[in-house]
Amino acid sequence: MTGAATNMRMKLPITCLILQIILIILFGTIVQYDDETDAKEWHEHLHNGSKDADNDFYYRYPSFQDVHVMIFIGFGFLMTFLQRYGFSSVGFNFLIAAFALQWATLMQGFFHGLHGGKIHIGVESMINADFCTGSVLISFGAVLGKTSPVQLLIMALFEVTLFAINEFILLTLLWAKDAGGSMTIHTFGAYFGLMVTRVLYRPNLEKSKHRNCSVYHSDLFAMIGTIYLWMFWPSFNSAITAHGDDQHRTAMNTYYSLAACTMSSYAFSSLTAHDGKLDMVHIQNAALAGGVAAGTAGEMMLTPFGSMIVGFLAGIISVLGYKYLSPILEEKLKIQDTCGVHNLHGMPGVLGAIVGAVTASLATPDVYGKGMEDVFPQIANGEFTASAQGARQAISLAVTLGMALLGGLLVGFILKLPMFGAPSDAICYEDSIYWEMPGEESHDNQLTAVRTEEVEKLNG
Amino acid sequence: MTGAATNMRMKLPITCLILQIILIILFGTIVQYDDETDAKEWHEHLHNGSKDADNDFYYRYPSFQDVHVMIFIGFGFLMTFLQRYGFSSVGFNFLIAAFALQWATLMQGFFHGLHGGKIHIGVESMINADFCTGSVLISFGAVLGKTSPVQLLIMALFEVTLFAINEFILLTLLWAKDAGGSMTIHTFGAYFGLMVTRVLYRPNLEKSKHRNCSVYHSDLFAMIGTIYLWMFWPSFNSAITAHGDDQHRTAMNTYYSLAACTMSSYAFSSLTAHDGKLDMVHIQNAALAGGVAAGTAGEMMLTPFGSMIVGFLAGIISVLGYKYLSPILEEKLKIQDTCGVHNLHGMPGVLGAIVGAVTASLATPDVYGKGMEDVFPQIANGEFTASAQGARQAISLAVTLGMALLGGLLVGFILKLPMFGAPSDAICYEDSIYWEMPGEESHDNQLTAVRTEEVEKLNG
Amino acid sequence: MTGAATNMRMKLPITCLILQIILIILFGTIVQYDDETDAKEWHEHLHNGSKDADNDFYYRYPSFQDVHVMIFIGFGFLMTFLQRYGFSSVGFNFLIAAFALQWATLMQGFFHGLHGGKIHIGVESMINADFCTGSVLISFGAVLGKTSPVQLLIMALFEVTLFAINEFILLTLLWAKDAGGSMTIHTFGAYFGLMVTRVLYRPNLEKSKHRNCSVYHSDLFAMIGTIYLWMFWPSFNSAITAHGDDQHRTAMNTYYSLAACTMSSYAFSSLTAHDGKLDMVHIQNAALAGGVAAGTAGEMMLTPFGSMIVGFLAGIISVLGYKYLSPILEEKLKIQDTCGVHNLHGMPGVLGAIVGAVTASLATPDVYGKGMEDVFPQIANGEFTASAQGARQAISLAVTLGMALLGGLLVGFILKLPMFGAPSDAICYEDSIYWEMPGEESHDNQLTAVRTEEVEKLNG
Repeated sequence: MTGAATNMRMKLPITCLILQIILIILFGTIVQYDDETDAKEWHEHLHNGSKDADNDFYYRYPSFQDVHVMIFIGFGFLMTFLQRYGFSSVGFNFLIAAFALQWATLMQGFFHGLHGGKIHIGVESMINADFCTGSVLISFGAVLGKTSPVQLLIMALFEVTLFAINEFILLTLLWAKDAGGSMTIHTFGAYFGLMVTRVLYRPNLEKSKHRNCSVYHSDLFAMIGTIYLWMFWPSFNSAITAHGDDQHRTAMNTYYSLAACTMSSYAFSSLTAHDGKLDMVHIQNAALAGGVAAGTAGEMMLTPFGSMIVGFLAGIISVLGYKYLSPILEEKLKIQDTCGVHNLHGMPGVLGAIVGAVTASLATPDVYGKGMEDVFPQIANGEFTASAQGARQAISLAVTLGMALLGGLLVGFILKLPMFGAPSDAICYEDSIYWEMPGEESHDNQLTAVRTEEVEKLNG
Repeated sequence: MTGAATNMRMKLPITCLILQIILIILFGTIVQYDDETDAKEWHEHLHNGSKDADNDFYYRYPSFQDVHVMIFIGFGFLMTFLQRYGFSSVGFNFLIAAFALQWATLMQGFFHGLHGGKIHIGVESMINADFCTGSVLISFGAVLGKTSPVQLLIMALFEVTLFAINEFILLTLLWAKDAGGSMTIHTFGAYFGLMVTRVLYRPNLEKSKHRNCSVYHSDLFAMIGTIYLWMFWPSFNSAITAHGDDQHRTAMNTYYSLAACTMSSYAFSSLTAHDGKLDMVHIQNAALAGGVAAGTAGEMMLTPFGSMIVGFLAGIISVLGYKYLSPILEEKLKIQDTCGVHNLHGMPGVLGAIVGAVTASLATPDVYGKGMEDVFPQIANGEFTASAQGARQAISLAVTLGMALLGGLLVGFILKLPMFGAPSDAICYEDSIYWEMPGEESHDNQLTAVRTEEVEKLNG
Repeated sequence: MTGAATNMRMKLPITCLILQIILIILFGTIVQYDDETDAKEWHEHLHNGSKDADNDFYYRYPSFQDVHVMIFIGFGFLMTFLQRYGFSSVGFNFLIAAFALQWATLMQGFFHGLHGGKIHIGVESMINADFCTGSVLISFGAVLGKTSPVQLLIMALFEVTLFAINEFILLTLLWAKDAGGSMTIHTFGAYFGLMVTRVLYRPNLEKSKHRNCSVYHSDLFAMIGTIYLWMFWPSFNSAITAHGDDQHRTAMNTYYSLAACTMSSYAFSSLTAHDGKLDMVHIQNAALAGGVAAGTAGEMMLTPFGSMIVGFLAGIISVLGYKYLSPILEEKLKIQDTCGVHNLHGMPGVLGAIVGAVTASLATPDVYGKGMEDVFPQIANGEFTASAQGARQAISLAVTLGMALLGGLLVGFILKLPMFGAPSDAICYEDSIYWEMPGEESHDNQLTAVRTEEVEKLNG
């Protein structure tokens, strides 16, 4: 079943080894412990009155681990819904995340500011690296089943770079706020991936259509991913917000947004089915849209009430997107979006960006008090008005969409180079081209054997 | 296979949307950030000498997330043991939990005391809301496979309300201690659910008996739920105890109680089988009884020794319940308890309540020192004697049993209303009446196809 | 299929109950709350100026829970890769861990120093008990599928004891550093298990060979174990390091070691396959070797650069071990290592020990500053030179290897006693000898029924 083109014997090892050796050299050259991970520096802080409990590790490491679970279990298992692509879903997710988090450390470190020519790292940079990785995994969802691991590593290489540039423009140049990444992570990752999959359009993909669906147990595996993403989204959105009320409030806003989103997702999943039956695709995905949509405004004084409205709308938009918009995108715009990332990350991300812009423009000292300094430092120090902050948030959305679409266009064409070993249209969504499959004695293969016998008998 | 009665096309969307819109309106009207999540209020605390590290977020959020995992992964996957009810187990667990945690915020907030007519929320209310949700999910275990999602939402609506009233009586009126909820959560949830399933008794349930059992992989999915519940139970019992030694001690007591319980569960599972083989039902459930039974006394000076005895007994009681009592309850009392919640939550909850009453009545200043103020403030300030505290604990158990049984009776009759779309006796424990099932091309369905061919050939 | 020898009806209950009752008696006699879990003692600390936030619970409990997940989900599910041994993998892992953590509390408490004849326990002892348990579970991996639960409990009894002695020699007598246990946990557990499986050599194990392999979904279950181990390894290595920079740095070093290891594992898995296909065995195991190899030096000033080199090498060594060394060990040395623990824990553990010795010998005050006191207190106070510390690390490795091999030899012969009910060579890797299997009506058994019909028809 494996043609020469998809044989990864040389391509994959060489790509992995070259990338990793470059990473090691660059880390050796320009990366250092920050003040909180360096033995000498931290103990000087202690000497000057800090306490071990002040180390940022204790403020952020539990959140980091929750984010880490989302990246590796959440995204990885969410994509195992396909019947014969579970190894690749979890396995390639694992590979490209392991690469992307290292590369992101360098790219984000470079743009976030060097210290004497060096990148300083600690738990906050680890969270940011995982965030950037999340964006790559969103794009992976759009091209799932149709790309080789080498293509995915190359995509990650470029996408991380562009992510870091976009993030720099938004957070440093425009002073936008986007702690949970409605724009930087979700909107960027989704539209980047959609453009890549558009460029990689496969007119004969129906040859693999019979594998582009789930089976009973693959849907249960996918639910592991869904539930972990859902549970830990409050940690995701709050992981890098300011200490104190900011982390606390962001987590809580996200919690209520997700709860409301789940209710509207179930409602619309049942409502849009002719027989009222729930669709696992909606439950696995749309119920998460509330987390995406609370990514920008979650740290603001959105109130639980506001969070619930946002989540409620996100769930509706997402289900309707899966039901009505995805088929149109595929037929009219030739966008083959395997996981429907437009519905889970794209539209809810845009919604989140808009909610963030509106909420920012409504910020008043009366509501935020001294807390304004943490959420909107430029409003607090009089540099911007609230409206100006809102405008910058809106501009950030536009920049993100532009960067994502242009970047995806560029990278899509790069990925079309034949040397990267993309599978042919007839063997998409199939693990066996990249993985040793379990042996002949296995349970599943005994089934196959029975089926084969049966078919032969019916034929003969 | 789906009759008109079980078609959820209108019932489920309308129920979800009405409930969620009511929730949003109520949240908009009466819910506010508490002092630790509100930007202005928290920064006034900071101004008055608090530090960000004092924010309750850092004391409780990791425990909250562990509890959250128990609610959504633990309960959800524990119930996937049924061969064709995995979608519903995880999916309805998800739906009713998303509803119940919002509704619980309101009900508990109302009874825990308003602030100027408003409910103030933060991480502690989030934990409490998850706790209350846990109680509903325990009841769900009793009726699993025999109720529609609309029935479950209605059950959650009433059960949360009654839970909050019972909790108010116990904690506020009687000054009982029950941090891990042996009474408020487990005893209440179990007996409420048992009474509901009694009222909903199905004389012809044997028509669905062939689906009321596990398959190999469904038992493995269920073990995911079991293990997560087991691991995080120390966080559950300690999540809302006082800061410092209380949280620390509660977690440790629970850890040892669970370890001892696991040992006795394995011993009795093997001992009660004619051929010495272990029964997955016992391992999946009885091994958790030690957490339930440490729910009241866990925060007290129970000692690791005492905790282990409690866990050891809980495991034995639970296995014996599954083996000998459940069949009697079903035959004689017409209680069809799908997950055996009486054995996992009912009896161990009562045991926990009794252990709590005894341990409280033995509290002395010599053992607790100044720590008495955290565990038993009324004993510390001389309001009660230790015996009086013990008596109040015992009364609390009686109140809980009464509330649960009466409440379950009432709600059971409400759920019998035909409009809620319960499945008929012949299609219980079956996902396909509520869920779009994976398509014809799937692996499982190919199996079905083979089977069908086979059967036809054998017949003709 | 179950012979008299493997009938656990009396053996398993008696073993569990005797062990647990002994544990309870010993806990009742010699175990006490430590100062941070005891109500009275902690409140005296508070009286003397401590704060609740200083309680070690807040520094270590989140790490403890991550470690706990690795022990019960990580190890448990990693071993579910076998097609018909999932119940036993998760279930026996659960049982022996529940026993071992209690026994380890006593053994480690005894060697770590008594307080007035009593063992004092709290979150740090809980982490240490879980660590010791991890070592037993590594050995379990070597004998997986070939031992009865009674044998496993007896093995745990002895292994925990020897672990505690070895740990005492290393950490207390030799003053070696080994926070993440490259030596104490991984090297010890692996070589102990390898020697046990050598002594238990089964010449006719090929009779069960058809069950010693995976199926599609069992490999996905195993990936749950892998990914959890991978994600939480930073917490494992940092769980008991000093507060502040030490925990922070250790977690970060491990994170980068693992990322680099994943890249090299994928590269070499593909490179060593004739058709370039990835092997699930490598991905499930070798990608974790970077965590093992960072177990000793992770807390040192290894730098992210150094960590990545270590992880990179560990991945390569591990894949090559699975590919080329394991078959040799089995054929020439008669070591039947079911999970390949030599490749995941043995060689990477030794590598980690060597890296630790080298890194320690290079420690300078210029790099560590005042932080030297936390990492190498004997170097800081002038008791040792850095070279001497390095030498002690190297001696520790030798001691560990000796203790593990001798201990394994001894325990292997004990386990050969026929009364422990080992399965015969023809029924290894088979759940049904120890577990009630799902009933006849199940999906899998329907498949079996179809297969049986089919075979009969073909034959007749």
